[in-house]
Amino acid sequence: MKSIQFNAHHSPVGAFASLTLGFPGAKGGLGHELKGPADEPFYVGLEEADREGYYQALPFFEAAEDKSADYDVEGHNAEFSYPNRISHFPWESISRQFAACMDEWSAGDLKFRVITPYPAVPDPTLGDSEGLKNAICPGVLIEVEVDNSLSQRVRKVFLGYAGSDRYDGVRVIDQKGLVGVGQGVSVALATNEPGFKVGVAWRPEMVINSRQPDNEPFLIGSTGILWTAVPPGEKRTYRFAAGFFREGTATTGIKARYLYRRFFNSIEEVLNHTLSRADSLTAEAKTQDASFATGLSEDRAFMHAHAVRSYYGATELLEREDGSPLWVVNEGEYRMMNTLDLTIDQLFFELKMNPWTVRNELDLFVERYAYEDTIQFPGDDTKYPGGLSFSHDMGVSNNFSSPGNSSYEQGGLKGCFSYMTAEQLLNWSICASVYGLKTGDFGWLKGKRETLKNCLASMLNRDNPDPAQRNGVISLDSSRCFGGAEITTYDSLDVSLGQARNNLYLAVKGWAAYKLIAKVFADLGLTQEAKTAAEQAAKAEATILAAVDTDGTMPAIIGEGVPARLIPAIEGLVYLDYLCFDLSDSKPLVEALKNHLTTVLTKGVCKFEEGGWKLSSTSDNSWLSKIYLCQAIAENILGFAPDLEADKAHVNWLLDPANAYFAWSDQMLAGKACGSRYYPRGVTSTLWLSE
Amino acid sequence: MKSIQFNAHHSPVGAFASLTLGFPGAKGGLGHELKGPADEPFYVGLEEADREGYYQALPFFEAAEDKSADYDVEGHNAEFSYPNRISHFPWESISRQFAACMDEWSAGDLKFRVITPYPAVPDPTLGDSEGLKNAICPGVLIEVEVDNSLSQRVRKVFLGYAGSDRYDGVRVIDQKGLVGVGQGVSVALATNEPGFKVGVAWRPEMVINSRQPDNEPFLIGSTGILWTAVPPGEKRTYRFAAGFFREGTATTGIKARYLYRRFFNSIEEVLNHTLSRADSLTAEAKTQDASFATGLSEDRAFMHAHAVRSYYGATELLEREDGSPLWVVNEGEYRMMNTLDLTIDQLFFELKMNPWTVRNELDLFVERYAYEDTIQFPGDDTKYPGGLSFSHDMGVSNNFSSPGNSSYEQGGLKGCFSYMTAEQLLNWSICASVYGLKTGDFGWLKGKRETLKNCLASMLNRDNPDPAQRNGVISLDSSRCFGGAEITTYDSLDVSLGQARNNLYLAVKGWAAYKLIAKVFADLGLTQEAKTAAEQAAKAEATILAAVDTDGTMPAIIGEGVPARLIPAIEGLVYLDYLCFDLSDSKPLVEALKNHLTTVLTKGVCKFEEGGWKLSSTSDNSWLSKIYLCQAIAENILGFAPDLEADKAHVNWLLDPANAYFAWSDQMLAGKACGSRYYPRGVTSTLWLSE
Repeated sequence: MKSIQFNAHHSPVGAFASLTLGFPGAKGGLGHELKGPADEPFYVGLEEADREGYYQALPFFEAAEDKSADYDVEGHNAEFSYPNRISHFPWESISRQFAACMDEWSAGDLKFRVITPYPAVPDPTLGDSEGLKNAICPGVLIEVEVDNSLSQRVRKVFLGYAGSDRYDGVRVIDQKGLVGVGQGVSVALATNEPGFKVGVAWRPEMVINSRQPDNEPFLIGSTGILWTAVPPGEKRTYRFAAGFFREGTATTGIKARYLYRRFFNSIEEVLNHTLSRADSLTAEAKTQDASFATGLSEDRAFMHAHAVRSYYGATELLEREDGSPLWVVNEGEYRMMNTLDLTIDQLFFELKMNPWTVRNELDLFVERYAYEDTIQFPGDDTKYPGGLSFSHDMGVSNNFSSPGNSSYEQGGLKGCFSYMTAEQLLNWSICASVYGLKTGDFGWLKGKRETLKNCLASMLNRDNPDPAQRNGVISLDSSRCFGGAEITTYDSLDVSLGQARNNLYLAVKGWAAYKLIAKVFADLGLTQEAKTAAEQAAKAEATILAAVDTDGTMPAIIGEGVPARLIPAIEGLVYLDYLCFDLSDSKPLVEALKNHLTTVLTKGVCKFEEGGWKLSSTSDNSWLSKIYLCQAIAENILGFAPDLEADKAHVNWLLDPANAYFAWSDQMLAGKACGSRYYPRGVTSTLWLSE
Repeated sequence: MKSIQFNAHHSPVGAFASLTLGFPGAKGGLGHELKGPADEPFYVGLEEADREGYYQALPFFEAAEDKSADYDVEGHNAEFSYPNRISHFPWESISRQFAACMDEWSAGDLKFRVITPYPAVPDPTLGDSEGLKNAICPGVLIEVEVDNSLSQRVRKVFLGYAGSDRYDGVRVIDQKGLVGVGQGVSVALATNEPGFKVGVAWRPEMVINSRQPDNEPFLIGSTGILWTAVPPGEKRTYRFAAGFFREGTATTGIKARYLYRRFFNSIEEVLNHTLSRADSLTAEAKTQDASFATGLSEDRAFMHAHAVRSYYGATELLEREDGSPLWVVNEGEYRMMNTLDLTIDQLFFELKMNPWTVRNELDLFVERYAYEDTIQFPGDDTKYPGGLSFSHDMGVSNNFSSPGNSSYEQGGLKGCFSYMTAEQLLNWSICASVYGLKTGDFGWLKGKRETLKNCLASMLNRDNPDPAQRNGVISLDSSRCFGGAEITTYDSLDVSLGQARNNLYLAVKGWAAYKLIAKVFADLGLTQEAKTAAEQAAKAEATILAAVDTDGTMPAIIGEGVPARLIPAIEGLVYLDYLCFDLSDSKPLVEALKNHLTTVLTKGVCKFEEGGWKLSSTSDNSWLSKIYLCQAIAENILGFAPDLEADKAHVNWLLDPANAYFAWSDQMLAGKACGSRYYPRGVTSTLWLSE
């Protein structure tokens, strides 16, 4: 049996918010714009069947400490302390049903469900609608089910949490038809069920076992509890909403507010709206969970559901001062915004769920995060014309960076934090082509005609300033590196993937980019550009094929004698296959990549001992999102059978007690989440699903 | 020499904000709506005269850790790490000039000054004005002075901090004439000096010693640094502003925003306005510092300055949805809002600085935080009519509590967190009388005529339901206690001050309240009420005098045989003296209190061994604000000489390394700040100043 002790996001769409739960202890809670779980105690519990005043609750809290000592320094106040009366349901008595939209824990006579469908978000530029309002309402539905049918006693049931915000204390919401607890105007937990009582105290026992039930909320406490009494012999289901809300300016650099502010003026409105849609939300969640798992093995269904959750927890739909929408995916624990080398991996999922968001991201890269550079050969100060590229990201932690600059890239480096100029150029070009060709949005492609031409020119320059010497592969570094060297998205890998120049992964990706824009230029009637791009693709193909070694593998860096071999050599294939390109005239390259993968995909080379995939033969660093992507390529394009042993190993990585706190994480150092934790990029798993 | 290693607030007026600095380590910073220091590293440093690239800085930070390992998990990135080049100025080389409005550190060739005058705040109901805007602008002025006159080298000087907000990252402000760093839209540090550069990184060295000066800010870092190069042979002074800003809804329960939002739409506007007024702010600060220290010993000047700072750091001027102002003083580490038993102690200072705020607080107590109760004798369930009283506070941590309820008071208790019904009734009655009589605002007193009559009726009922048995002293508890017992503001003391019934401290305070409202009723032409109140005062006086024991002291609880003796017996005298009441017909009581104090004010009774005052003979708990108050009474009314040994002991309490982190703290358990830390109530010290 697999462990159920793992955190998962439970998030609305575009609210950069998550009710994160599942890991033992006070390690989840109502997280709003955070880089990780809120680390708040969360309480959902039921009175024991046989002991009045004693409770069992899901183990999402630690044994509480008594804070009255801060006030009552000489300890005269024993009368105000309450003995511990809430024990954890033992883990072995708890079961969990986990899917992308429904997550349910069962223990004793209690069931606790969090329900988060992810409706398609209508393009906000097309106007407001009830559909848009429903899709982005920043609330999460919760159900607590109590089976008291076999009991002769009234039993109390409660739900609550202790707030961790340092600015606003825990408050009570008590309106007509809505009772709840929350912090400030930003997070809350509420119900519209009749008969619920609300309390605030240091610990839940002070509310549910209060010796003075008529006491007003003790607002000095930070624990807010909602409770009611379940009649004997009955089975009841109670509904709650968790809400998230940011009222004012959400971001600087580009001043923006959350787009849901068009529809909601307060968190109370959010809570009411969520509760009013409970039936629809439940129905949507069930339908969507079935579709997210169709045809997947249990291991893959688990990983896909987990990845989808972590993706939505990172989404942030903003509205700029001119009313235009701005879609942001935050980069998990790093919180960088719209990191372009994540965008390209999330592309397939975004195109499935909300295609307009891809266009929105690409447009902002052109509008604000494009730049022109000069380029240099390594060790040579001579500057050649470079051309257009795009920054690594758009900022970090709700601050948009200045035009043309990421929050991340720094000059003078050869490793992590150096520029990714060439890769981001490829990324934008590929994303734009795939978006335009997949959705058929030719109007948009036409509008990007000059940008695409500039992209091609920039790719050519980065191959070689001398047209006669071009081989289809990146050979120069941006002068923005100040003598350093460009890197790739695999920023913390060794040189096998770290270096951009002559990188095999980028070479194949560049080949695909040339093929894609050749098609776009042809469709746009730009015959000359189409021809140039196609020629470059052919040169790249030749260069890559020439790099094949005697054992049939290709080195990670072409022509530099490195021993490293890597799986992501095959990445470039995915875009062409996704668009159903005819690859028959690229058969030698496809075959070479297949041979390469077949050879490297062995333990000790590009597999860990327990069977998990290892992206580079010379590094223990592996990224799950890229593994999912390469698995889909291997199976869908290269004809590999699904690697069930690998899937099992990857699930074990995510469920490792050292990793499971971070929900879905990407970067694994020999199976330990060492970076890119609490991360959105795992939705490359969408490629496992047949369309 | 006294220690200079203590935190102090540096605060604008009414912004609930403080640039707290002075304690060693990362224990201060830009605190906004916090219960204590922000615990952020703060950097102000200068390049060494003899070593290029090495710096000395004031020791308000810890040795930094290198965070690049979170990203560069295999450690390939040594090129991006910067060696530690900033050392602390040794404490013994630092001097500090500390006053209420100016705080200056000098070390080597560097001076660092924070300048915070506290202008009178015009009553906002009288309309907007430049004076109001200036008074409540939520910015703090900073000066950094570098004496490079003896040096032949350019030396870099820098100022910055590392942000601790978990929602918004550190950003750069770079506008025409303003360069700065900050977090989100809420806190920032900026300068309008030409030639300053700005950077963001993990550590200051990455900015000031950057190997690539052309790099853009590394926004992933949380350290924001402003720096410039000081020319050789020159002496320069650079000005900065620290700003605080909350854009939207600041409080729930009563929905309100900061009143400064009338004048400022962004933190950048706040920073610019603060910098534009640098000369005026400096001049105001100097004038005010002189006046705050006039006639005070060094020890008392220190404590008064410290208390004034902590008071202003707790002030929060809000605007309700109807545009009316709402003045809040937050209760230090507890963050309760407008705690009425603090209001009465802060009364003298508020009446000096901003009399309208007292009226504002009293009005809101009547509007929303008044209640009517029934009352009971201890151990008896019979309920008698009680009457009007007021809640202990108005809420906590930016959440206003529900009408008629505090965040603090709970039924069923006999100690801490029980009701303070009788004391708060006296507190409101006294504050209202003192406000009206001192300011001559008879229009307001007239408007409160019915309220005052209800206060009198309530005081009478709480004495005894049977008029014939009244003795001028509280004998019943509110039924809100649900069988518990009322307490006093000394909530965590033993029974000597904890119990309200027959409490000597409350008896004298009640006597004063009767005298005061008798005068008010007389002035309002309510002859019968004036007579009743005067009779009650006489009864109280007789009761108190009858309690005098053979040794000339009075017991803490009248008639219950307790051994405790206490200093605050004399508190009630202060209001009458403050209003210049003729006390000649109360001579026996005044004499009795003088005898009492003379006797108890000895070591082992109401003095600690080192000379500090001990409010109760039976508890080690002491409150500095109350000591200051009682010192003023002893000297101004009872003819005691200033107790210099006690002053010294009290200064030592505040400067104790265990306490000095909390700036000014109130509650001391044998000299250790154990509660009421980071607290506003110390401004009772204003009574040390002759008017």
